[in-house]
Amino acid sequence: MKIERTIRSIRKIVKQARAKGKSIGLVPTMGALHQGHISLIERAANKTDFVVVTIFVNPTQFGPKEDFNKYPRSIRIDLEACRKAGADVVFIPSVKQMYPQENMTWVNVEKLSQGLCGRFRPGHFRGVATVCAKLFNIVQPDFAFFGQKDAQQVIIIKRMVADLNMPLDIVICPTVREKSGLAKSSRNQYLSPQEKIEAAYLYKSLRKCRQMVGKGIKDVKKIISQMQKIIHFAKSAKIEYIEIVDLKTLEPVKKIDRLVLVALAVRIGGTRLIDNITIDKAR
Amino acid sequence: MKIERTIRSIRKIVKQARAKGKSIGLVPTMGALHQGHISLIERAANKTDFVVVTIFVNPTQFGPKEDFNKYPRSIRIDLEACRKAGADVVFIPSVKQMYPQENMTWVNVEKLSQGLCGRFRPGHFRGVATVCAKLFNIVQPDFAFFGQKDAQQVIIIKRMVADLNMPLDIVICPTVREKSGLAKSSRNQYLSPQEKIEAAYLYKSLRKCRQMVGKGIKDVKKIISQMQKIIHFAKSAKIEYIEIVDLKTLEPVKKIDRLVLVALAVRIGGTRLIDNITIDKAR
Repeated sequence: MKIERTIRSIRKIVKQARAKGKSIGLVPTMGALHQGHISLIERAANKTDFVVVTIFVNPTQFGPKEDFNKYPRSIRIDLEACRKAGADVVFIPSVKQMYPQENMTWVNVEKLSQGLCGRFRPGHFRGVATVCAKLFNIVQPDFAFFGQKDAQQVIIIKRMVADLNMPLDIVICPTVREKSGLAKSSRNQYLSPQEKIEAAYLYKSLRKCRQMVGKGIKDVKKIISQMQKIIHFAKSAKIEYIEIVDLKTLEPVKKIDRLVLVALAVRIGGTRLIDNITIDKAR
Repeated sequence: MKIERTIRSIRKIVKQARAKGKSIGLVPTMGALHQGHISLIERAANKTDFVVVTIFVNPTQFGPKEDFNKYPRSIRIDLEACRKAGADVVFIPSVKQMYPQENMTWVNVEKLSQGLCGRFRPGHFRGVATVCAKLFNIVQPDFAFFGQKDAQQVIIIKRMVADLNMPLDIVICPTVREKSGLAKSSRNQYLSPQEKIEAAYLYKSLRKCRQMVGKGIKDVKKIISQMQKIIHFAKSAKIEYIEIVDLKTLEPVKKIDRLVLVALAVRIGGTRLIDNITIDKAR
């Protein structure tokens, strides 16, 4: 497994792989890799011939009061995990390499970036879309792999790829969870043991939602009210949002009468966690 | 020379050319081709092995009160001109092909899009950057060719390519002019014979500017005042702007003490015309 730190060198090595007729898979990450990331790399290794993992904590997707500086970094452990999971090369650019001058060009996926997390993290998805566009242009993969855990991100990136005719396919991989149901996240490292127990209520509330829909309950207000109750079993929980939205437009629905995304963001102590499930009315 | 109308088919034919080791040149146009476009195609044919000309009047770069509907279209004559100039394929997508659903994703090159024409055509450069990003992603050229006549556009596209790490080079070709000095433009078709004579004062004013700088005059106010006088020899001229700006940042300068862009937009009757020159202080 190679490690590259410059755009020039990663392009060169990908070009060589492509010249051999290999298909290229890209797994963009911010490092602090957990089992969720590993599953993306393994899927990429399964689906493509040459797997590029990028590790870049992208400053332009963090708000001024967010955790860019304290975001967990564990590069040596990450590299070992990449190797084991089947990465061919890891691209670890510096901020200077990715943003050598003031960035003036922004990719903005309107509407889809407004609601849910977008409401609480202004500019976040603009930063995500922009850095993904950059990484796609640098690596030029045939497939890029993202986790369903970041549902809004995934929907935004898929729309960007469609709208801008980017020549790659986006592959979505299922959320990986702890035994408790807590979705794997690099930010779980911030949680104390007690907070980790409380954080499990997020997924419990999502399961409750699925259960209610299974029983034929379609009224969104009723469902969300029950979900709130469950989350408030966690003493330190502060709900940012619980929303049920159309999976394609991300617009809130009143009744579960189509394919929907049930998404939530909750602060447990100082840590902001997100989770989601999709539910088909037919289920 | 082939003609393609779908994204799928243009990608296929470009892929075949690339598989033969050919370099790809792209000349994006809105049709109504004139000698300026021809020079771009010829330059592309000279520099690359496989030349794609696109003809697409892009609705997203026109304002609601602008001339999208009456913009000149002359596809048969254009195709003959492409063939003669050395195009290998002409891509003529429909609006539906380029925008099959509501476009949510916009590429915006901030700051550079604000001034000059951006002030009078809000959203114009966002539309230009977005459609160029789409065409670059569809054709995946090694080089794309643009005319210096659209100076602000060229600077914006170059910045977009740099900021987003797009894997191509932008080649700028000199403005082609009538004998009178009038810059070739598809919109010159709108001019009456009398207006065409008057329109020649635009370039005369730019030449005056160069002359004054040649004589050591550096004060921008003084120079612009002289340029205005010349343009007002044209009875029907309404000046939108005459500006002298830093060539890299497009910010106005007070003294010509660096490489500058001298740019203007003037309405002759109902027709909006633009022109520009660059001047180095050293000259």
